[in-house]
Amino acid sequence: MKILRISPLCLRRSYASFKPAPKLSVSDLNESTLEAKYAVRGKIPIRADELRSKIKELNHGLPYDRIISANIGNPQQLDQKPLSWYRQTLSLVQYPTLIDKINKLDKNVRDALYPPDVVDRAKKLLKSTGSVGAYSHSQGDTLIRESVAEFIHQRDGYPSDPNNIFLTGGASAAVLYLIQVLSSGTKTGFLIPIPQYPLYTASISLNKAVPIGYYLDEANDWSTDPKLIRKLIKENKEKGVTPKCLVVINPGNPTGSILTEKDITEILEIAAEHGLVVIADEVYQENVFEGQFTSMKKVLAGLVEKDPQSYGNVQLASLHSTSKGVSGECGQRGGYIELVGFAKEVKEIIFKLASINLCPVVTGQILVELMVNHPKKGSPSYDLYNHEVSSIHKDLLERATLLYGSFQKMTDVECNKPRGAMYLFPKLNFTEDKYPKLFKKCEELNLTPDEFYCTELLEQTGICSVPGNGFGQVPGTYHLRTTFLPPGTEWIESWSNFHKDFISTFKQK
Amino acid sequence: MKILRISPLCLRRSYASFKPAPKLSVSDLNESTLEAKYAVRGKIPIRADELRSKIKELNHGLPYDRIISANIGNPQQLDQKPLSWYRQTLSLVQYPTLIDKINKLDKNVRDALYPPDVVDRAKKLLKSTGSVGAYSHSQGDTLIRESVAEFIHQRDGYPSDPNNIFLTGGASAAVLYLIQVLSSGTKTGFLIPIPQYPLYTASISLNKAVPIGYYLDEANDWSTDPKLIRKLIKENKEKGVTPKCLVVINPGNPTGSILTEKDITEILEIAAEHGLVVIADEVYQENVFEGQFTSMKKVLAGLVEKDPQSYGNVQLASLHSTSKGVSGECGQRGGYIELVGFAKEVKEIIFKLASINLCPVVTGQILVELMVNHPKKGSPSYDLYNHEVSSIHKDLLERATLLYGSFQKMTDVECNKPRGAMYLFPKLNFTEDKYPKLFKKCEELNLTPDEFYCTELLEQTGICSVPGNGFGQVPGTYHLRTTFLPPGTEWIESWSNFHKDFISTFKQK
Repeated sequence: MKILRISPLCLRRSYASFKPAPKLSVSDLNESTLEAKYAVRGKIPIRADELRSKIKELNHGLPYDRIISANIGNPQQLDQKPLSWYRQTLSLVQYPTLIDKINKLDKNVRDALYPPDVVDRAKKLLKSTGSVGAYSHSQGDTLIRESVAEFIHQRDGYPSDPNNIFLTGGASAAVLYLIQVLSSGTKTGFLIPIPQYPLYTASISLNKAVPIGYYLDEANDWSTDPKLIRKLIKENKEKGVTPKCLVVINPGNPTGSILTEKDITEILEIAAEHGLVVIADEVYQENVFEGQFTSMKKVLAGLVEKDPQSYGNVQLASLHSTSKGVSGECGQRGGYIELVGFAKEVKEIIFKLASINLCPVVTGQILVELMVNHPKKGSPSYDLYNHEVSSIHKDLLERATLLYGSFQKMTDVECNKPRGAMYLFPKLNFTEDKYPKLFKKCEELNLTPDEFYCTELLEQTGICSVPGNGFGQVPGTYHLRTTFLPPGTEWIESWSNFHKDFISTFKQK
Repeated sequence: MKILRISPLCLRRSYASFKPAPKLSVSDLNESTLEAKYAVRGKIPIRADELRSKIKELNHGLPYDRIISANIGNPQQLDQKPLSWYRQTLSLVQYPTLIDKINKLDKNVRDALYPPDVVDRAKKLLKSTGSVGAYSHSQGDTLIRESVAEFIHQRDGYPSDPNNIFLTGGASAAVLYLIQVLSSGTKTGFLIPIPQYPLYTASISLNKAVPIGYYLDEANDWSTDPKLIRKLIKENKEKGVTPKCLVVINPGNPTGSILTEKDITEILEIAAEHGLVVIADEVYQENVFEGQFTSMKKVLAGLVEKDPQSYGNVQLASLHSTSKGVSGECGQRGGYIELVGFAKEVKEIIFKLASINLCPVVTGQILVELMVNHPKKGSPSYDLYNHEVSSIHKDLLERATLLYGSFQKMTDVECNKPRGAMYLFPKLNFTEDKYPKLFKKCEELNLTPDEFYCTELLEQTGICSVPGNGFGQVPGTYHLRTTFLPPGTEWIESWSNFHKDFISTFKQK
């Protein structure tokens, strides 16, 4: 029957009468897409995927039977269980018929399947969204934006306007919008912390703008130095680059640091003076072990209250996400931006971009609602919710402490104490005088010492981490980022053993 | 307690010591984001939102009590019910604990809640994804990509490679990636049909590339004219613009036309000769009322089989989505691209872009699986599935026919018979000699006649449609796009009445 598949036009002749053009090569593509780098899913994680496939083969010959994905904060890929409150509600909004079906069951059976507050919330959300299969308003469902505004109000003690909330497909989509809108030419500068989360440099590359890295102070718990920022603004203006935006990641990724209120105030003063939009990436606001998270919005609202003339023009975009915290619902793509102080016409352009993307996934929007408006004491779901949340917090702290402890014991590794987020960013104190063999090897392989270390760590132990150069580091220093999410202690032991061998192979005796 | 919120730094002084910078205005933003237009959610739909809010007020004073959203193909916002097969499975993958819980129920109760093939599929998907809350591979879950490849194989009779499948957040995300990657400067041309779906012009604007519109032939059922495309390629090359990609929307949006195999073959010949990447937007492949859908991939595979030398270099990206068809799951953001013929290095760049976005929403990926690998005859879910699918098809055909019939009766309206997709794109035969008052009014209001017509239609009847100029049309012609999704006949009657009044007001007697 093959002949049926050939069009009549083709049957008329054996060969086409034209000279075929060649395929595209990378040199035909958008240069900015070639330049963008994203190490978190870069060379080493891609190699980890290959090894993961290899492990499935019989007699794979590798000295391990699993890959430890410590390259990315993806808790549910490891063993973190989703919160029942989230998943119960989502299962009902996905299948509303079930609400009627369970209503016909005995009360005991029904309540064991779905606590009444879950059913109520699901109904309320269905009433607002209509169906999770319908496009929502491009800015996100109204009811959910109202809940987000109320959450911010409760958190900060200052009101928030639901019209300033944009629900987004995770915080990544928010960053991509904002950087796209603000990149008004190849002379637009974005001040970003170094080390940074590489989504920032990637988005800046894609928009052909200029990253201006401000180094965080490793010796002082990765703190932010306002003087340095001011200096960079001055220098870049002199070079013809206009700094237009300042990115703050708090709690820090990959550093795990937490900004003090004093630091935040100084950053906002710089923003007010230089008309910089502040992007406050606060997706780890629930992941705090030591110290206290203070939102950029809270500090700004306080400053505006006290001195509206000086601070009234500050434009702040703060981001939150359902992927981190105790939610860890990375694959569900929920998040929001709060825009403060932006002109109406500018918000309209951001809205247009959101419209071109139609709408953020509706179930992700619902997760935002469930995160910001969770069961309160006394409600049927509260005890289980509270128990699950506490266990996750406890677990994360234990794992962070354990991994931190073992880095402290490793030769020539220095690591700041984790305060927040999901990562450690230890320094590998490799210098050419102490590690001549290592530097020679790296030169041969055209790798930096951190790339080589992470590559070897992966090949020998199956642990996938990300070299510090994917995040940025002071030249001549070497780091790596690892999450502390993988369960158990066995992988940490195998890392320690690897490290011992590495040192004994490469360190000058 | 307010004092606690003010930082120590602020307490030291009453006023800041700097001159505050002004807020951003639109002139400070990325020019390309200002220029991008997206009429489907543009001025008229935004006005419809305002009216929708107004309707909620007591004594709103409007002559209608609901807005008819005919501007966007959003079936579940109207009254299309989701397929039980989709939603049952999604509810289980969202809440896997339910699988254990229902296992403890009596078989009768259990099977009434969840047919066994739903439970099996949910388990299989959970095994592959781990959790819908975990980031997946950036290209999408492997099992699901295998199902997509098998679906394409069955559909076309030619094999498909799962490594060439990229799962995406709806087809929109796919279009945005592809146009971004291919836009290698301000002289890159994209051949797009006119009328087109405005996502294309919007993406091309955002990437500062050049749209090259090829008019579809309205007098011949909106067919494609290969001669015209060849002429445009020649002219644009002479002007220094390099056509790099040719977009085909089949079944057509907004036109509802279907490409013949002969047309597709000619398009592929042009692509082979000029090295154009073909983007085949085939999201309406299931929405066919008359004639038959033939995929671009099938025709290409046939040509390559017969004449690999001429056609072996053709690069095709074909798109599909869970938002349209009988699925209509717009808010869930599922879709895929099949890449055929692309160099490995080019696919790597597309993969990198996907990585920067982390992963398409996992529940949307699962919907793709459920769409391409649905219950087969004999399986427990088949009868209900088949019944629901047939009803939706029947319903859509009825609504299309009804609306088409009423356009045929309207004075000075011409409409091609709908063959596929979800839209009608009638022509408003308004000419200055017959409608002098209309053209005078439009000049006063700085609106085109189609914009004015759609605005009046909305204000007077609550029906939200999109003017033809949002999609492109031959200069001096006026159209509008409407979906035929809204239920009932009452809205169609009110449109007919509005039209009569409009004609009697504006047409020269």
